[in-house]
Amino acid sequence: MAILFYTSPTSIGVATHIALEESGLDYELVEIDFTKQQQSSSDYLKINPKARVPSLLVEDGVLTETPAILTYIAQLAPNSSLKLPSDPFQFAAIQSFNSYLSSTVHVAHAHNHRGARWADDPDALKAMTAYVPKSLSACFALIESSLIKGPWVHGQKFSISDPYLFRMASWMEADGVDIAQYPRTLQHWEAMAQRKSVRTVLDWFS
Amino acid sequence: MAILFYTSPTSIGVATHIALEESGLDYELVEIDFTKQQQSSSDYLKINPKARVPSLLVEDGVLTETPAILTYIAQLAPNSSLKLPSDPFQFAAIQSFNSYLSSTVHVAHAHNHRGARWADDPDALKAMTAYVPKSLSACFALIESSLIKGPWVHGQKFSISDPYLFRMASWMEADGVDIAQYPRTLQHWEAMAQRKSVRTVLDWFS
Repeated sequence: MAILFYTSPTSIGVATHIALEESGLDYELVEIDFTKQQQSSSDYLKINPKARVPSLLVEDGVLTETPAILTYIAQLAPNSSLKLPSDPFQFAAIQSFNSYLSSTVHVAHAHNHRGARWADDPDALKAMTAYVPKSLSACFALIESSLIKGPWVHGQKFSISDPYLFRMASWMEADGVDIAQYPRTLQHWEAMAQRKSVRTVLDWFS
Repeated sequence: MAILFYTSPTSIGVATHIALEESGLDYELVEIDFTKQQQSSSDYLKINPKARVPSLLVEDGVLTETPAILTYIAQLAPNSSLKLPSDPFQFAAIQSFNSYLSSTVHVAHAHNHRGARWADDPDALKAMTAYVPKSLSACFALIESSLIKGPWVHGQKFSISDPYLFRMASWMEADGVDIAQYPRTLQHWEAMAQRKSVRTVLDWFS
């Protein structure tokens, strides 16, 4: 059966969507409409009780969490641009970068509009939103100085970290961080924007 | 060379420490003393510019981020209790669980004492701390109802998810969440506490 891919166009699901396009795997996209709260519908909660996207429904079951999904797609597509290194250290470097995006960069971004995950006081939510440019700038300063090898995240070879970083970088402007301050990140973003996979994904919902 | 393992006894490094004990790999522990701000010393920042623990210094370089480190240790110790499944879906299920701990459960916990990562207003920090029992309870309710297969996280076979969950569960009491409300999590915690690896790690700094 084809992979069923549950996503929404404004979510981190875009990273998985690009990876699916790069992989050449057969998949079917199911849009979860956040404006209609479909992520919390009883039907979707049966698929993903976390009420989040993306989710991947495959023959063996459901997978959630972007770092795990990206690695799974890459393992299923060893002849694509996503081919994983067999060396454990190089593999771990990819996992480490993706884990940083997931647990630190995405979390910093989420404090802009999703502060209700961590406090219910309205003034606290405002304070979180106000702090996002600072925390997210620190993340991208680290990415720029220590993590991007260039031209792709891990050097000459494209990997699953590239769509993931591209998606994060696409959020910077709305979060009050100027990507132009981070020339390697900007160069990466521009290189990604030219790929066929990215153009396909960005056109998908338009 | 032996693996150099940078950690502190109060940190998430405990999960990696247990995994190293389970692995049988040769390692040397270097304590980073948070009470002396050693994580921000210039010497340590050369190893890990994120100013966090754990870090693993191996022949090929430095690795950070617990999910990546745990997988790396397991790949180096295929004859240990940590042996990874070769099936991509089963491997992804482990990565998915670990990613959830890292990006959601650990982050909920961090709002107790590390709120300054996401706001600088003192009242906002208090509001975050006050909310931790609620957000962390929601995490453990999900783990209990949907994620732990039992007796180990992924069923009959022990994995790198087990030390990671054990470490998270050890934080519950101080975060105002009663582990007894989550019988499968409690049973898992008790089974972990009996393992030789865990006793070795808990005795390490005492």
